Amino acid sequence: MQNFVYCNPVKIVFGKGTISSLPDLVSKNSKLMMVYGGGSIKRNGVYEQVKKALKGYKIVEFSGIEPNPAYETCMEAVKIVKEQKIDFLLAVGGGSVLDGTKFIAAAAKFGDGDPWKILSEGAEIKSALPLASVITLPATGSEMNSYAVISRKSTVEKFSFGSWRVFPVFSIIDPETTYTLPKKQLANGLVDTFVHVLEQYVTFNMNSPLQDRQAESILNTIVEISDDVLNKTNDYESRANFCWCATQALNGLIGCGVPQDWATHSIGHELTALYGIDHGESLAVVLPRVWEYNFELKKEKILQYGKRIFGIPGEDKDKTAMGIINTTEDFFRTLGIKTKLLEYGIDSKNAAEKISTRLKSRNTPLGENDQLFPEDVKKILLNC
Amino acid sequence: MQNFVYCNPVKIVFGKGTISSLPDLVSKNSKLMMVYGGGSIKRNGVYEQVKKALKGYKIVEFSGIEPNPAYETCMEAVKIVKEQKIDFLLAVGGGSVLDGTKFIAAAAKFGDGDPWKILSEGAEIKSALPLASVITLPATGSEMNSYAVISRKSTVEKFSFGSWRVFPVFSIIDPETTYTLPKKQLANGLVDTFVHVLEQYVTFNMNSPLQDRQAESILNTIVEISDDVLNKTNDYESRANFCWCATQALNGLIGCGVPQDWATHSIGHELTALYGIDHGESLAVVLPRVWEYNFELKKEKILQYGKRIFGIPGEDKDKTAMGIINTTEDFFRTLGIKTKLLEYGIDSKNAAEKISTRLKSRNTPLGENDQLFPEDVKKILLNC
Repeated sequence: MQNFVYCNPVKIVFGKGTISSLPDLVSKNSKLMMVYGGGSIKRNGVYEQVKKALKGYKIVEFSGIEPNPAYETCMEAVKIVKEQKIDFLLAVGGGSVLDGTKFIAAAAKFGDGDPWKILSEGAEIKSALPLASVITLPATGSEMNSYAVISRKSTVEKFSFGSWRVFPVFSIIDPETTYTLPKKQLANGLVDTFVHVLEQYVTFNMNSPLQDRQAESILNTIVEISDDVLNKTNDYESRANFCWCATQALNGLIGCGVPQDWATHSIGHELTALYGIDHGESLAVVLPRVWEYNFELKKEKILQYGKRIFGIPGEDKDKTAMGIINTTEDFFRTLGIKTKLLEYGIDSKNAAEKISTRLKSRNTPLGENDQLFPEDVKKILLNC
Repeated sequence: MQNFVYCNPVKIVFGKGTISSLPDLVSKNSKLMMVYGGGSIKRNGVYEQVKKALKGYKIVEFSGIEPNPAYETCMEAVKIVKEQKIDFLLAVGGGSVLDGTKFIAAAAKFGDGDPWKILSEGAEIKSALPLASVITLPATGSEMNSYAVISRKSTVEKFSFGSWRVFPVFSIIDPETTYTLPKKQLANGLVDTFVHVLEQYVTFNMNSPLQDRQAESILNTIVEISDDVLNKTNDYESRANFCWCATQALNGLIGCGVPQDWATHSIGHELTALYGIDHGESLAVVLPRVWEYNFELKKEKILQYGKRIFGIPGEDKDKTAMGIINTTEDFFRTLGIKTKLLEYGIDSKNAAEKISTRLKSRNTPLGENDQLFPEDVKKILLNC
């Protein structure tokens, strides 16, 4: 096991009817900004629940945070935050709304510098507004971590940043708020959760049997519940279990003391930025090809994963491990998520060229051993 | 799944050589009390490491916290804390030292009332000194939770208390500090960790597949590593994995949204208070008999546990579940921990009488459904 530091102070308030506990969690003296997206919370009743719970609070609303939240939109919110002297941000929506809110919290306190540097240069965040969330989409795990991913429309870029200063103070997770989600978003969330785990688990052996099994706990549960999540209407139990899996997949715990990959996410972000495919879709396309490319490095972990999650035994290690990669791709497809660029109308040659060129300028290799250079990413994308 | 609130802000600093990071974690302006036990940290080099790391700090030492830390001893420390205006407590040792430190932290700020009320009446803790730990014994999980168990010599009682105000600010876990532990303490720690998980897992079905598997992650790992933990000298990997299992077993995570039992611990505390047997020993004696007594309630979970941890299949549910209870008892015995009161020279009739009488005066039923009354505990103990 590697040395590690772990600290996650987010207060999780989980379950039916928990939005009504907002007054116990937010000071009455706060001047709040309620940040949300395109209006789905108005259609599913969440907006009403939040407003009712916070009756009597000073609230400024900011709507319009888009999927893959845009730097430009967030900066509009920052302007209002400063003008109105907002002192607490409440994100109400999915991971995009929350990620946008994290950036608003950091950018509003960034001082005189250009907040874009937080994303483009990893500039240090020395202060941030306190923020919290009512999360309505199980997928990103943003409700219990200190990371966010932000896109810039003008440059067609997508970057992540992280700082302990943007941990939500609390996150309310009421699984009932997911009842109205379209099937496509649920499927994307299942893939996202699954791949979050795989990025921290299918690397190479670090003698971490507990972390391995904690990772497998989430994978096995996702495989077990995915059909109910997608096909049962208003099924509290499967939605509750999905929500808790999504949160646990990216709150840092399973990554303690083990190598982490994240190449699939990095390449996926580029696909989303350039071609607009959903985040979950991009992961389903890229992951199997990253595994094939890093086959020798990952083989033993792929075999362990295949055996413990899908019950795949096998004498011939190479053949079995290749079969497990196919099974993983098939699993994404059974969720209704396509796994080939061509199926999304994207030319793999075009993507390989564009993305490898972009990565060259950034000069940061990808993968658990920093082993993937732009030329490697090019080859991976040609196979996508 | 039941509704729940989860928050655990403890910063874990894990790994080889991490004691040297103390200056990054404790303010130079603090006036520290370093709390420790009978002196084992002087023999194994931990004392020296801490003192070296904190060179130049104002430190008052308080030694002599005993296994099953005594209220009387802690109150001596409280006196010094007040006299010397100590503002930060650093526990260096095992769970007993840390539990004692948690009580000192709360009692020092309890105001004019009698701090014993924190234990006997569950009096609210409105303030506490900040505290942290260098933990040297994997067992209690105290390094990442807000609970403590304290004994009173004068009344031969043992009570627990909890408050978010006594979460350690940080805990340093360096697995190398466990190399000098006697085999008996390691075995007790393995049993304690295992039973912490079982108390939160072997209850009744609450449709919590992720929490179940997270619990099983710890159990499977303990079964897998226990032989190496007990028999390999200076084996970093098995000790590191044991340490992380012990921490994860009682940091609240696996108990999220599920029923919890804790009858074995409550009865075990009485056995330790009255007869002085080790905490781990008391658990190994009581747990199998609690399960037999609550057989119908726990049967389905016992079957799941037996299948997933020990690979025990079975057509006949009753016979299989009884066999799994025996396997669990056998597992404790293979660790070298006896499972019968008689083997500790304790008369079960005497224990049954004394403990059931004590519980009558407390008027709090035990078990996951508050189903165990003093008369039930009497019957359980007669079978121990």
